Amino acid sequence: MQKAQRDSTSAKKESRADHRVWGDEAEIVDAAIDYAWRRITEDPDPVSGARPAADLALAAGAAVTPWGIGAEAAIKLFDRVLLPATRSQSASTNLAYIPAAPTRAALAFDAVTGAANIFAGTWEAGAGAIHAENEALAWLTGLLGWPSTAAGCFVSGGTMGNLSALITARAAAAASRPRPTDGWKIVCADSAHSSIRSAARAMDVTVVTAPVDRRGHLTGDAVNAVLTSTTGVFAVVATTGTTNAGLIDDLDDIADVCERHQVWLHIDGAYGGAGLAAPSVRHRYAGIERADSFIVDPHKWLFAPYDCCALLYRDPAPARAAHSQTASYLDAIDREVHNPTDLALHLSRRARGLPFWFSLAVHGTERYVRAVEQTLTTSRLVADAIRADDRLRLLVEPELSVLLFDRPGWGPQDYATWSARTAETGAMLCVPTQWHGMTVLRLAFVNPDTDAGEVIETLRTLH
Amino acid sequence: MQKAQRDSTSAKKESRADHRVWGDEAEIVDAAIDYAWRRITEDPDPVSGARPAADLALAAGAAVTPWGIGAEAAIKLFDRVLLPATRSQSASTNLAYIPAAPTRAALAFDAVTGAANIFAGTWEAGAGAIHAENEALAWLTGLLGWPSTAAGCFVSGGTMGNLSALITARAAAAASRPRPTDGWKIVCADSAHSSIRSAARAMDVTVVTAPVDRRGHLTGDAVNAVLTSTTGVFAVVATTGTTNAGLIDDLDDIADVCERHQVWLHIDGAYGGAGLAAPSVRHRYAGIERADSFIVDPHKWLFAPYDCCALLYRDPAPARAAHSQTASYLDAIDREVHNPTDLALHLSRRARGLPFWFSLAVHGTERYVRAVEQTLTTSRLVADAIRADDRLRLLVEPELSVLLFDRPGWGPQDYATWSARTAETGAMLCVPTQWHGMTVLRLAFVNPDTDAGEVIETLRTLH
Repeated sequence: MQKAQRDSTSAKKESRADHRVWGDEAEIVDAAIDYAWRRITEDPDPVSGARPAADLALAAGAAVTPWGIGAEAAIKLFDRVLLPATRSQSASTNLAYIPAAPTRAALAFDAVTGAANIFAGTWEAGAGAIHAENEALAWLTGLLGWPSTAAGCFVSGGTMGNLSALITARAAAAASRPRPTDGWKIVCADSAHSSIRSAARAMDVTVVTAPVDRRGHLTGDAVNAVLTSTTGVFAVVATTGTTNAGLIDDLDDIADVCERHQVWLHIDGAYGGAGLAAPSVRHRYAGIERADSFIVDPHKWLFAPYDCCALLYRDPAPARAAHSQTASYLDAIDREVHNPTDLALHLSRRARGLPFWFSLAVHGTERYVRAVEQTLTTSRLVADAIRADDRLRLLVEPELSVLLFDRPGWGPQDYATWSARTAETGAMLCVPTQWHGMTVLRLAFVNPDTDAGEVIETLRTLH
Repeated sequence: MQKAQRDSTSAKKESRADHRVWGDEAEIVDAAIDYAWRRITEDPDPVSGARPAADLALAAGAAVTPWGIGAEAAIKLFDRVLLPATRSQSASTNLAYIPAAPTRAALAFDAVTGAANIFAGTWEAGAGAIHAENEALAWLTGLLGWPSTAAGCFVSGGTMGNLSALITARAAAAASRPRPTDGWKIVCADSAHSSIRSAARAMDVTVVTAPVDRRGHLTGDAVNAVLTSTTGVFAVVATTGTTNAGLIDDLDDIADVCERHQVWLHIDGAYGGAGLAAPSVRHRYAGIERADSFIVDPHKWLFAPYDCCALLYRDPAPARAAHSQTASYLDAIDREVHNPTDLALHLSRRARGLPFWFSLAVHGTERYVRAVEQTLTTSRLVADAIRADDRLRLLVEPELSVLLFDRPGWGPQDYATWSARTAETGAMLCVPTQWHGMTVLRLAFVNPDTDAGEVIETLRTLH
């Protein structure tokens, strides 16, 4: 619809809007929506970044006031002061932590998702949205090699996904075994994500770490050693794509061990689960078809906006048993249908899987395969350049799209200085991490628009 | 920006977009953004609703395919098939469960929030957005009568807010007391929300329920009786606005008891916390200034879209101690600044408080006060009409904006039939609930646009 058309449509509504507490919001909506369109269409500013709180407060002034500052002033404040004080997660030169790379299609449909304001916790309220979310989940189920009876839902992030899966696992264990006298336990590698420890703390269970081998993998033998000597373990967490190094645990061997000990196998694929879509690395995930639960964050490497984690159960029955919330005012809810609220620790929820669904629908899954492969190609090109550079040392043989490397002779302060300068110019955001007690550099690729040549050129400044 | 202008801006970008895996997404973005604008501007359809899964799948067909169906087809599918298969949470005639009533300003800025795709977990990445969120939280802090050193963050919903607060409470207790031999315990009323039980299940703690008095309030005496006879209680949960009946517990007396027993007091104001803004009911919250933690869902009665819960701590230090996630790749994060991830159980997060902030900034807080008062006025008018109607019986003296009533002589089937017919015509969505073992009717008002006269007229059909 053209803006002129919009104006006449808005005018018709004005008389009806008069009585409203909020008055006629047409101009506010037009201004904010036009601004959203610009934000989606224009590339993010790679050199934006945080400011100290006091400094920012002074620059921003008061926006929340008794009588309101109006849309123009609020948008200007956001555009000139607040947004520039955030890091551009989606800039193609952002290779720090796990950056983001949402498609413009997904960003635009996020606006529709908000506008529709669907309560997507229960089928009764959100059926149409949940159907679409389930279609996106079905693509993931297929990639996992799971049966079509698998089910799940989208939750706010990896922490919530891991927690919800582990709650299910504990409830399933508690249904058939007495509570261990020294409490329930989870087994994972030391390289497992911090959210596993957060989940364990929340659940008041013990984390037993198993050592990784020299490739950095959690192995079946290591898990077996722990399970043989420890009672009360209700879940093993394996990682497909460790956050720090992008490594994939030995899933098939671990699945053997879990099967033998009858322990739940949860896969944390928050970042690296996306690699399931890429034929060039799919073999590394062998055994994942035997896992009990799985998460992947589409807001990481599947091109969706924040915040969106896909949580899947090979068999959803134990999840329903563990998570259903009951209450008088919820009595009318039909528990036989697909209620996302019965599968994770949430009740009210945004239909946060819709932007991912829309982008998948518009672009097609084959383009997603190409996009993931493209980032893998970029990482390989950069890895090759690091290998070929006498001054640099690739520290880990990359399995997905994270590279760990160092510049022998440099210490923490050298890396910090270089990292800050490179960020300031907008050339690249690359922050140091720790690897075997050393400060090293780390690059994480999730954006198919990242230019390998530009990255390699920037790495030449590590002279 | 007019569409014509947009077109020329888009054209300039095309050459650069050519190499992208995603191709030129300009038309997709325009179509989705225009559709979002329509969804915000037009009133929601009050008679839309769920369909059985198989039926819906047949009507929808396959949208996620290898080669993509394009934006036009995907938007048409959403508009004609999927959205009509959801309940309109924001329709002014939706008075079931807890409906929603986001301002159009908040909906429009939700599009900006998505478009900006800010990682709002850490100050380093999301400073500008977090500053704005904190400004919105500061308004709530003021309403609570808490010191300005109080702090918090926005989480995905009440379940997560309650869980995060209770994890903090347990960690604080565990820091000064040994773990009780029979485990940690929470005290709450039987009328507390189901999410408290979900949180307790997740945390593996016991819920000890205290009886409510004949007004339906949890009292200081009842809490005292439990605390005197029970060891290992680390938190008392009081509710300001029970979901089923809209009642507020006796906060001041409960705060006395918690102080005496040195137990954490958490307030679940998911729905009813919004009433803090309304002078006509503010006295009911006396004592809330002494609580340790508090949640309110702006997506319920504070006119924000899904999903958005404000979590606040009077003193954020114990929350930081309980929630900070550490990891090698997170080493660069400054823990001295305001990191939302240090205050709740999440890491990646959308800046979900921004739509609420923008709407508050644009409209001003006084208009929020009027909007909440307006819904209270509507509830009072409808309550008066029920009292005046010989065939109807108001079952509970309303304290906020939930009404429980029945039509003596009717049974569950009568209510179900009436409720379904009233929903089908779009006149009103009002579903039965349970009250003291009886099936009764329930209305929940959160929308200032709800017309009391229309509601009263519809209630006349309860003949």
